[in-house]
Amino acid sequence: MTLNPKRTVVELKELRALTGDENGAQRVAWTDTWLKARAWFASKVKVLPVEHHYDAAGNSWVTLPGASEKGLLIGGHLDSVPNGGWLDGALNVLAGLEVLRRFADEFHGRPPVTIRLVDWADEEGARFGRSLLGSSAFAGSHSIAADRARTDRDGIKLEDALRRCNVEIDRFPDAAKERANAAAYLELHIEQGPVLEKMNLPLGVVLGTKGVERHAVTFHGQEAHSGSTPMNARRDALAAAAKLALEIRAIARKHPDAVCTMGSLKTFPGIVTAVVGRCEATLDQRDLDAKILAQMYQETVEASHRFATEEKCTVEWSRIWNIEPVPFHPHLLDLCDQAIREISGTSHRMPSGPLHDAAEVSRSGIPAVMLFVQSLNGISHNKIEDTREDHLELSVVALDRLATKTASWILSR
Amino acid sequence: MTLNPKRTVVELKELRALTGDENGAQRVAWTDTWLKARAWFASKVKVLPVEHHYDAAGNSWVTLPGASEKGLLIGGHLDSVPNGGWLDGALNVLAGLEVLRRFADEFHGRPPVTIRLVDWADEEGARFGRSLLGSSAFAGSHSIAADRARTDRDGIKLEDALRRCNVEIDRFPDAAKERANAAAYLELHIEQGPVLEKMNLPLGVVLGTKGVERHAVTFHGQEAHSGSTPMNARRDALAAAAKLALEIRAIARKHPDAVCTMGSLKTFPGIVTAVVGRCEATLDQRDLDAKILAQMYQETVEASHRFATEEKCTVEWSRIWNIEPVPFHPHLLDLCDQAIREISGTSHRMPSGPLHDAAEVSRSGIPAVMLFVQSLNGISHNKIEDTREDHLELSVVALDRLATKTASWILSR
Repeated sequence: MTLNPKRTVVELKELRALTGDENGAQRVAWTDTWLKARAWFASKVKVLPVEHHYDAAGNSWVTLPGASEKGLLIGGHLDSVPNGGWLDGALNVLAGLEVLRRFADEFHGRPPVTIRLVDWADEEGARFGRSLLGSSAFAGSHSIAADRARTDRDGIKLEDALRRCNVEIDRFPDAAKERANAAAYLELHIEQGPVLEKMNLPLGVVLGTKGVERHAVTFHGQEAHSGSTPMNARRDALAAAAKLALEIRAIARKHPDAVCTMGSLKTFPGIVTAVVGRCEATLDQRDLDAKILAQMYQETVEASHRFATEEKCTVEWSRIWNIEPVPFHPHLLDLCDQAIREISGTSHRMPSGPLHDAAEVSRSGIPAVMLFVQSLNGISHNKIEDTREDHLELSVVALDRLATKTASWILSR
Repeated sequence: MTLNPKRTVVELKELRALTGDENGAQRVAWTDTWLKARAWFASKVKVLPVEHHYDAAGNSWVTLPGASEKGLLIGGHLDSVPNGGWLDGALNVLAGLEVLRRFADEFHGRPPVTIRLVDWADEEGARFGRSLLGSSAFAGSHSIAADRARTDRDGIKLEDALRRCNVEIDRFPDAAKERANAAAYLELHIEQGPVLEKMNLPLGVVLGTKGVERHAVTFHGQEAHSGSTPMNARRDALAAAAKLALEIRAIARKHPDAVCTMGSLKTFPGIVTAVVGRCEATLDQRDLDAKILAQMYQETVEASHRFATEEKCTVEWSRIWNIEPVPFHPHLLDLCDQAIREISGTSHRMPSGPLHDAAEVSRSGIPAVMLFVQSLNGISHNKIEDTREDHLELSVVALDRLATKTASWILSR
């Protein structure tokens, strides 16, 4: 039996029917619906000549032992955001399952290298605000101390929600054992952006995940009566923030793939009859090049101080979070490029703005690469998230071809 | 007994001690503290040769009958915002009381014209969101229908809160009877802005109250992932709003006394990882010249459409409220100017950005004028609201002198 990409689409629809509703996918990690998705997946796996277990962080591992113990890892995640899409994370897992089936079939249950399919636990961090939870435990970059106290909206502790799924947070470090013999990691994902659609390309090579600088920027001016305060006597915190909201675009546009976003802006007192005394903004900056990222951050800090001075305000910065860029493995990038060209004629290399489990795997020292399949309208994390079915099928074929090339490379090392 | 401006300051402090706390003045209309302030005021009035009653809208009238029935009205308001200042409204009433005492004393209880002191009910609108309530009933510009359904934060109806103070909203139109024989209206007020302080002047003539255009402006773009959406593929609603926040300043600065304010700006979804899909802003524009006000509004509408187009967004306008400019009476402006010059050497004519009861009185056809006394740091509606005591005393003297000039003018007509 050869690769059957149409089966992947059928299975994605099965999963959607089982775990979605009129508002979209509801496979939020550590919930009953997520456990239902995992049980459904386990039933698919049971008929294959594989070993299946959950590691200490709740990652689900399906292993098809090969002639070599060296492992070719293929990953994804069945969890979704609330009211999410049918493809984000699930395509990765089910395309990987199809590739695993093909290996099992072609090599009569014993491929040249060991094939391991992983469904990472809690990639989205939708419930407790900590994304890449399972893959960070695998990579050894997880901090138990920081996560123990996290709670969801209902006040339920992360620790307790995990225990309900038979995962003990204190045992998280044991998940690193799964790194043994890991030789390469592959991940297919929907693009979640508009680039491939605009280029009319089904598939792209992902150069790596961009580094992120995420900050809170607060301007302090002087609240004043909107009627009695002349324009030249104002210290308008919104004016300073508005200048920065526009300036970050010029700062980003100096670099081809960089992005800078002001996603939230809050005004205080925030009433129609008062000049804004305080303005709280958030800043999110991303690039694959650490130097460019550092430069953009520096330029934005400088601009904020300039605007504060111009508006007789002060400005205060506070880092929310940051992560360095994670470039993928150069040889795997080439293999991915070849696979895509063989399938669809043209390839395109692009960085990923969103983070993915592949970044954690790569940071742990395992050669990794991702491929993107086109998203329609660049929308994800929403029930309207979609990809053409012929593109979904092409993506399974491309992942499969990349897996074959990668297995050969593993053996040649 | 002659005018005693120091008594006004003493009485202001008495009132503060009686009705303020560590957060400021608490004389919110229709509350027990406000009633306490009014009872205190009534006790001051009782010893004078006057008639005192409350009209159908709850305005408190103290009448010193004169040789002529023609009435010289002096007004203010004892109500404050929550956590308000000690002067806003109360200075007007207590300075007026001192002037009334002087008239009573000098003319042995029978001045040449009838002197009427009014404490307007609910100037601030702090509890039910309807300012100038009592004076609009007097002026006949009040709409019962619009106000009947208003509720405070606790869900108490305006209608019921007024009834508790023996005011029936259905009888509001009867308050217009108080307009009989009204020949002129004077009001002293703290400036609530920084202009006189910057000019180092204690007193100013108020040209009128500025007209106001108050609007909600909403930009619609496209919510998108901050990581995966290239800069040139964005439809950033915040960018359009930021351009408008800056442009309204240029629009206002074409005119010497105009102000334009964006007091509130809200971003949706308003999260650090999403390009802003919708941005809701408020706009408040004021000028004393109706043509300038209309021009500023028009220019801002046009600019908003230009920015929406530039950012591939759409824009939607919705009027919150507006009022035309109310210029004060030309001859009373001259008398006010003379009075201030005689007292302090120099005068300055300026429009009022904030609204005042004098605007309602003037709109009803009664010649009116206001004088401002300097505010420290331009702050009001706050416990730190303050004015130098020597300036407070000067303002009582100026109001008294203006009252004498106005009484003569009334008789000469």
